[in-house]
Amino acid sequence: MNTFRAIGATTFLAPIPVVMLSCRGTEPGFERDNLITVAWAGVVNSDPPMISVSIRPERHSHAQISQSGAFCVNLIDKPLCRATDLCGVKSGRDIDKFAETGLHAQTVEGFPAPALAEAPVFLCCRVDRVIPLGSHDLFLARVEQVYVRDALFDPDGSLHMARANLVSYAHGEYFPLAPRPEGFFGYSLARPDVLHRRLVEPYAKPRRGGLAGPRR
Amino acid sequence: MNTFRAIGATTFLAPIPVVMLSCRGTEPGFERDNLITVAWAGVVNSDPPMISVSIRPERHSHAQISQSGAFCVNLIDKPLCRATDLCGVKSGRDIDKFAETGLHAQTVEGFPAPALAEAPVFLCCRVDRVIPLGSHDLFLARVEQVYVRDALFDPDGSLHMARANLVSYAHGEYFPLAPRPEGFFGYSLARPDVLHRRLVEPYAKPRRGGLAGPRR
Repeated sequence: MNTFRAIGATTFLAPIPVVMLSCRGTEPGFERDNLITVAWAGVVNSDPPMISVSIRPERHSHAQISQSGAFCVNLIDKPLCRATDLCGVKSGRDIDKFAETGLHAQTVEGFPAPALAEAPVFLCCRVDRVIPLGSHDLFLARVEQVYVRDALFDPDGSLHMARANLVSYAHGEYFPLAPRPEGFFGYSLARPDVLHRRLVEPYAKPRRGGLAGPRR
Repeated sequence: MNTFRAIGATTFLAPIPVVMLSCRGTEPGFERDNLITVAWAGVVNSDPPMISVSIRPERHSHAQISQSGAFCVNLIDKPLCRATDLCGVKSGRDIDKFAETGLHAQTVEGFPAPALAEAPVFLCCRVDRVIPLGSHDLFLARVEQVYVRDALFDPDGSLHMARANLVSYAHGEYFPLAPRPEGFFGYSLARPDVLHRRLVEPYAKPRRGGLAGPRR
């Protein structure tokens, strides 16, 4: 049997998401497109689709999002990891983070926040309410639209998110996901042929003259 | 430049946590120790340390946690992945999930919810408030104490969470984290010697007669 050691009251949940929020304020001094990295984000509701992000009230992005009532959540892949870290330690009050990282703002027609053009996926979110919790304010937001990079779709229209090489965050470190999943929702009750089709076939070694597994 | 395809309003945030909550109700019919799998969890505040979990009101665990005002968040490693999936598709109203999975409830002195003895880490959480959002109720909870498996500590007392082999959830699939991190918080501004010490040395190939890198 395991034994345990108490380490105190801490926010030790892991792995958690790491995403870049993109936003733009409406008041003088806040109108420059900005990127902020947050690890304190989560899905909170399915109908209507809602997510939450927690931001310290003193952050530049907190004012920007409060002014516009909107932001994009940009998912992070391995090539974006270093820029993600940088956008988590510098403030948009002091620097232009798009210029500093060489990344690009993407305009979303009719939406008051920019997206990150280099993200594999971005979610356009509208603030529903803000709940002060102490060190952080919890923003509950509705997801209005989700955009996925074209390259993640096959010509038949099927979407292959496992190719996106997403990055997670755990206890102060950024971890890419393993290249193949351990299982899928419901796999503990799936028939052997379904398990094989979902968990073995797509990752089999390429045959001579055949196609490789999923690109990653 | 990337082009994007709109896929509608969905909860497409990823990677997200996947954890098992352990709980026990106080009213007749709800008193059996239970496990429920949730992917809709997140850190929401650091001072005081708080996390959120979203649960559908019709779930057996929703009633149990509402009655006791407490639950444990059990982090998930690779060996727990199949049981985690099973506890996400079956209801504690119908079956004893500890018995069904062969897992064990761990009593926490003075705390009204059991923990999962096989978890690498568990967080004892006390419900602060519940916010109905539609399909789900958002439970905001204070973390009272965190327990970490003894085996994750070195004899010198240092904690090595990367050995825990944690599992993340992305778009319907369970993904272990890659065996080594891409970076650590602040690495984009770290000196070369710090980068080497944190990201290269611990993962170097074992030398003849020497020690291997971190156990995983």
